[in-house]
Amino acid sequence: MKIRPLSDRVIVRRVEEERTSPGGIVIPDTAAEKPMRGEVLAVGNGKTLDNGQVRALQVKVGDKVLFGKYAGTEVKIDGEEIVVMREDDIMAVLED
Amino acid sequence: MKIRPLSDRVIVRRVEEERTSPGGIVIPDTAAEKPMRGEVLAVGNGKTLDNGQVRALQVKVGDKVLFGKYAGTEVKIDGEEIVVMREDDIMAVLED
Amino acid sequence: MKIRPLSDRVIVRRVEEERTSPGGIVIPDTAAEKPMRGEVLAVGNGKTLDNGQVRALQVKVGDKVLFGKYAGTEVKIDGEEIVVMREDDIMAVLED
Amino acid sequence: MKIRPLSDRVIVRRVEEERTSPGGIVIPDTAAEKPMRGEVLAVGNGKTLDNGQVRALQVKVGDKVLFGKYAGTEVKIDGEEIVVMREDDIMAVLED
Amino acid sequence: MKIRPLSDRVIVRRVEEERTSPGGIVIPDTAAEKPMRGEVLAVGNGKTLDNGQVRALQVKVGDKVLFGKYAGTEVKIDGEEIVVMREDDIMAVLED
Amino acid sequence: MKIRPLSDRVIVRRVEEERTSPGGIVIPDTAAEKPMRGEVLAVGNGKTLDNGQVRALQVKVGDKVLFGKYAGTEVKIDGEEIVVMREDDIMAVLED
Amino acid sequence: MKIRPLSDRVIVRRVEEERTSPGGIVIPDTAAEKPMRGEVLAVGNGKTLDNGQVRALQVKVGDKVLFGKYAGTEVKIDGEEIVVMREDDIMAVLED
Repeated sequence: MKIRPLSDRVIVRRVEEERTSPGGIVIPDTAAEKPMRGEVLAVGNGKTLDNGQVRALQVKVGDKVLFGKYAGTEVKIDGEEIVVMREDDIMAVLED
Repeated sequence: MKIRPLSDRVIVRRVEEERTSPGGIVIPDTAAEKPMRGEVLAVGNGKTLDNGQVRALQVKVGDKVLFGKYAGTEVKIDGEEIVVMREDDIMAVLED
Repeated sequence: MKIRPLSDRVIVRRVEEERTSPGGIVIPDTAAEKPMRGEVLAVGNGKTLDNGQVRALQVKVGDKVLFGKYAGTEVKIDGEEIVVMREDDIMAVLED
Repeated sequence: MKIRPLSDRVIVRRVEEERTSPGGIVIPDTAAEKPMRGEVLAVGNGKTLDNGQVRALQVKVGDKVLFGKYAGTEVKIDGEEIVVMREDDIMAVLED
Repeated sequence: MKIRPLSDRVIVRRVEEERTSPGGIVIPDTAAEKPMRGEVLAVGNGKTLDNGQVRALQVKVGDKVLFGKYAGTEVKIDGEEIVVMREDDIMAVLED
Repeated sequence: MKIRPLSDRVIVRRVEEERTSPGGIVIPDTAAEKPMRGEVLAVGNGKTLDNGQVRALQVKVGDKVLFGKYAGTEVKIDGEEIVVMREDDIMAVLED
Repeated sequence: MKIRPLSDRVIVRRVEEERTSPGGIVIPDTAAEKPMRGEVLAVGNGKTLDNGQVRALQVKVGDKVLFGKYAGTEVKIDGEEIVVMREDDIMAVLED
């Protein structure tokens, strides 16, 4: 199933960060805070401004992004957990 | 009876998702959270922008859509339960 | 007495829905929730947009409309109870 | 003393409604809710829109108007109680 | 010392109203509510609208004005108590 | 160190007012409310309006200004306490 | 890893201020309030105004800036703690 976000919404798949305690022990994810990184899976066609003009999004599919811990809504589609958020919830793009 | 939503409102019929517990037992719907998927039954003629221009909606009748758990108002028309929401409450369109 | 609503306001007369309990007994209206349907009695001359342009209303006298349970203000004029609401409180027009 | 309201403000004198209980007894006004009707005594010269244009008011001196129970501010001028409200607090004009 | 208000601000000196109880006894001011009348001492050069245009104020020095009980900020300048408020806090101009 | 405020921000140095109790005793400042007067040390280059135009500030370096008791943020730079506020927090300019 | 902030966001690295108590003892940072100074590491490409025009940021990489104690979101990237904030959270640029 394909999911097409509306307007300025973006579909993001969270990327789990490896967490190691000072003593070198890997902390299983449920014991740690949820990560704030993800990969963009789909983007909307843009936000309609007050003058009727549509502004395309700045992020694109495949971008690694940083977002707030409580950004967006979590949804399960075909067994996979994704997050639907507005582009404005994305703070930055991470580049290698 | 036909229901014609005003402006940027959309009429949606919820689609029940099948829910199966880990042990394979189907959970009757009243025991589970309400689904967030639906099918668009009718759309308004668009939102009037500040400059007087009318912007047509992005979703159309028949679209399968994803929306927030608390989006819109539930109404019973001719014995059928529908949800009237604003297009902005719709997060994404689901395509096969 | 004639009542002429200002701007984007609409005068609506509630239409009582018949309510029958599963066993076929008609529930008197005071024992049930207030209906959300009504008939438009009068409409304002439109909303003045920020650019000074006046936008006419979408509903017209005689329309059967659906509105939120807590929309508008109830007023008694000449012994009749009416509701004064903004057009934006009207969710949809019901057509036969 | 003459009172000249600014911008989109309107001066209204409340009109007391006669109240009769089902048994035909007139209820003195202090025992009933304050009426929501009044007569316009003075109107401002209009609201300045964002583009600098001034929009004249829709109500005029002498109009019988309907307004919300808590609209405006009560002021006593020369021993007479008046209400200063914004035109937007006026819901409708009552015509004979 | 001269005080020049910025933008759409107005400097007002409260005017005490004489208060007489029904029995004819003058109520000293501390025993009564603060008056809502004043005289304009100075006005700002106007409000800058969103389009960059400056709109001059409607009130002028010397105007007797009516304002809300909690409008503005009280300041003591050279031993005199004044109130700095926005023009929008002024409801009306009182004319003889 | 020089401090250059951004946009419509202004740097102000509080000016302590002498406070004398009715009996002629000078009240040390810590026992009294903080003053609301100050001198402008630096001003931003102006506020960008919605249309992209930049509007220069109305106050200038050296102006004696009046501001709300809770306006702005206090900062210590090079041992000196200053207040960074938006120009809109300044109510008036005091002239000799 | 490079981090590219979106729109009007700015990446800042906090600069710790040396704190010395009146008696000359250096207070370790954990015993003091968090500093409000930092250095700009990266800036977004600008804010899109309502008319679709993009306004470039006023701060640039390398600027020493002053910001509110609770501005932005703290993020750890490659072991370094940075703060992602909107340019509007930056009060001033500090120049030598």
